[in-house]
Amino acid sequence: MKEKVLAAIKEYNLIEENDNIIVGVSGGPDSMALLYSLLEVQNSIPFNVHIAHVNHGVRGDDAESDQLFVERIAKELNLPYYTKNVDMVGYGKEKGISSEEAGRELRYGFFRDILLKVGKGKIAVAHNKNDQAETLVMRFLRGTGIDGLKGMEFRVEDIIRPILGIDRREIESYIEKNKIETVLDKTNLEPIYSRNKVRLELIPYIEENFNPNIINTLWRMSNIAATDGRFLEEYSKERFNIIVKNKDKHSIILESGKFLKEHKSIQQRIIRVAIENLNGTLQGITETQINIVLRLFLALETGKEVHLSNNIVAKTRYNDLIIAKDHERDVVKYFYKLGIGETNLEGIEYSFKVRVFPKEKNLILDKSKNTRYFDFDMVKGSLGVRNRLDGDRIRPFGMKGTKKLKDYFIDEKIPKELRDRIPLIVDEENIIWVVGYRTNDLYKITENTKKILSISYN
Amino acid sequence: MKEKVLAAIKEYNLIEENDNIIVGVSGGPDSMALLYSLLEVQNSIPFNVHIAHVNHGVRGDDAESDQLFVERIAKELNLPYYTKNVDMVGYGKEKGISSEEAGRELRYGFFRDILLKVGKGKIAVAHNKNDQAETLVMRFLRGTGIDGLKGMEFRVEDIIRPILGIDRREIESYIEKNKIETVLDKTNLEPIYSRNKVRLELIPYIEENFNPNIINTLWRMSNIAATDGRFLEEYSKERFNIIVKNKDKHSIILESGKFLKEHKSIQQRIIRVAIENLNGTLQGITETQINIVLRLFLALETGKEVHLSNNIVAKTRYNDLIIAKDHERDVVKYFYKLGIGETNLEGIEYSFKVRVFPKEKNLILDKSKNTRYFDFDMVKGSLGVRNRLDGDRIRPFGMKGTKKLKDYFIDEKIPKELRDRIPLIVDEENIIWVVGYRTNDLYKITENTKKILSISYN
Repeated sequence: MKEKVLAAIKEYNLIEENDNIIVGVSGGPDSMALLYSLLEVQNSIPFNVHIAHVNHGVRGDDAESDQLFVERIAKELNLPYYTKNVDMVGYGKEKGISSEEAGRELRYGFFRDILLKVGKGKIAVAHNKNDQAETLVMRFLRGTGIDGLKGMEFRVEDIIRPILGIDRREIESYIEKNKIETVLDKTNLEPIYSRNKVRLELIPYIEENFNPNIINTLWRMSNIAATDGRFLEEYSKERFNIIVKNKDKHSIILESGKFLKEHKSIQQRIIRVAIENLNGTLQGITETQINIVLRLFLALETGKEVHLSNNIVAKTRYNDLIIAKDHERDVVKYFYKLGIGETNLEGIEYSFKVRVFPKEKNLILDKSKNTRYFDFDMVKGSLGVRNRLDGDRIRPFGMKGTKKLKDYFIDEKIPKELRDRIPLIVDEENIIWVVGYRTNDLYKITENTKKILSISYN
Repeated sequence: MKEKVLAAIKEYNLIEENDNIIVGVSGGPDSMALLYSLLEVQNSIPFNVHIAHVNHGVRGDDAESDQLFVERIAKELNLPYYTKNVDMVGYGKEKGISSEEAGRELRYGFFRDILLKVGKGKIAVAHNKNDQAETLVMRFLRGTGIDGLKGMEFRVEDIIRPILGIDRREIESYIEKNKIETVLDKTNLEPIYSRNKVRLELIPYIEENFNPNIINTLWRMSNIAATDGRFLEEYSKERFNIIVKNKDKHSIILESGKFLKEHKSIQQRIIRVAIENLNGTLQGITETQINIVLRLFLALETGKEVHLSNNIVAKTRYNDLIIAKDHERDVVKYFYKLGIGETNLEGIEYSFKVRVFPKEKNLILDKSKNTRYFDFDMVKGSLGVRNRLDGDRIRPFGMKGTKKLKDYFIDEKIPKELRDRIPLIVDEENIIWVVGYRTNDLYKITENTKKILSISYN
């Protein structure tokens, strides 16, 4: 294990001499193996190890005993130890993000704070080869491109993953051989049940029926995707720099003549680069939004604009293609994916329950106010919930054509202040339900319906 | 359905006016829906429809009654009808390919023969959106890159797939609504059981547990991958044309100075372009082989060479990187993937049976001459069978180090003529078994072995 970790450190330039390495230690086997293997590597490269542990404020006593365990280990190893108690659920509610995202933000925030105090270095986290395979499977099942299939990387800025290339089995045997104490696995911090279902059900099924070596197959796939993905990223940034005409903190202007000459694959990426340049992040920006911007830019009709998540606006003006911050708005545009099961969106104070079941004869659907039923086979792509965007249209139940959502709101006499707060259930093409109001006629249950999608809110 | 088919025809330029469209009709629902929707489209675009049916020489009476059915339909519709009886199993044996590959070759060969006779046109085949999803899942499970994830295309040269974007459900309801007669589905022509297992087990499981809309999700994924894949392909060909110094039918010479400046993603693709240019195909060329060539080209040691499948050799000479045909050899280099279950390789007159099972206490392994057992967790990537390549090394059972396979053959007194005919079971890193001779020591069963891989040959 030590040799593999050392090889990864060298190949990906993870640790430099005298770096301060903040090791995120939950106490589970992965992070303990990471910690001990880094201590072994110290014989080859001189660097400092700091132990950091976050108590996420869930799992009560268990979490406290984990915290005490990591503290004791740090003492025994005579290593600097930092710990913090956070309230990930409360923070998530406050920021309008899921508690998993909140946990991640708080955790990395804490690690970075330590790094700021102790000086130059990196944050080491304990993802392994099986985690990588699970990530790839989950992304594949939800839909992704090459950028998703590259999975996690050995290094992203100041975050390093020295044991990413090592599989769970080798970690376990390392723990066993070196008689390293650990606490139970921390999977209960993971986003709900899907990762566990992938780990415990789907991957074993694939191993048995299709590819006994799926973990390694996916590892290789992630490497291929990473190579192609890195090239596309570098190339797009190069092209972006050539195509950009003006760039400040309010807007980015691209030259349409040059933009139009690029391949569609690169055009899409240039739009992403522009948004990321302006906003620091691509979070909340979907494939669909990028394609809407692309259509706008290709049509090049002066004066048109589209509003995206995070108050970004894309517009055209003569030969300028513009991505800008939308200062007129103070409404947060949100978008969350909805999976089967219950999703609790604390940020918008709604929870949704999604079910799919076959339409059997004599089936009686419960007519509760909070539940609506749809023809499941009409759904295009995955489901999501968001608030309104410019250009939204709806085909209200019982009507033939579509109408502007804005006009629908006016007809329904919904006051302006409320309109941004009404959740819309969407698939990747249409609004299928204005929650609390009308559903989309296209998705209604008919005699041809085979499966029923039921959505409830609270 | 007609509108969607027409839209696809226009978007992908599938049919031009007065084209002769050879429609491959098995008689199953997909090909019958394709046939009837093309007849509807004839109202919008004038073209000629020809019906072609291949009897593959398997499934006896059933196949004959399908053939008679298609013949009757052609008569009723008053359309030109072509049919051919082939022996796909025998042809496969003769050519050293699997019978599925043989079937495909014979089928498309027949369609092209018709096209040659009737003049300018295309061959229309009946793959649909579900087939596409199944293809993506199968490729994902076996390992693939962006080029695999793009799936099948609406058009590749003279082959068109007008109903690729239509899902099985819509096809069925079209068949039902228009009261179109069909015969049973032709899935028994498909490569063994894995596609059926994907269709009947895995996809329904994914729909129920992860993504009810996986068919559409994968459809979108294939579109994204196709866009990126097309760009990478075009860009690599562009770069290839700049880097190529000399090109004739015996060899292709690349200029190393320019080659070294490219991104690794593009370097790999340039090697593929070169091989395809020289050989007309990339069949049999694995990811591993491309990487071996890349390492050779990057090291740039004059006089070194590596031999690839299909008698292609890659070598370096001062500043020249050379891909050439290897005229000294008349041995066919083959490579087949081995999955769990039985694989019958008629081309090399061997069949292999692969099983994986847990190592339980008191397990007694049958010591038959034709079966060997391995530590399954040692296997890297997927299994394959091939004959020897230059540079092959083996770590014979009971030995510590590795030795050249050539030396092993000499020690074992295996005559030169036989050496190319001995199948080697390989994973993506090592030879794990010289069939009929020694196994690889690395893969032996130890007390730590958890799962046993058993391979038998016949």
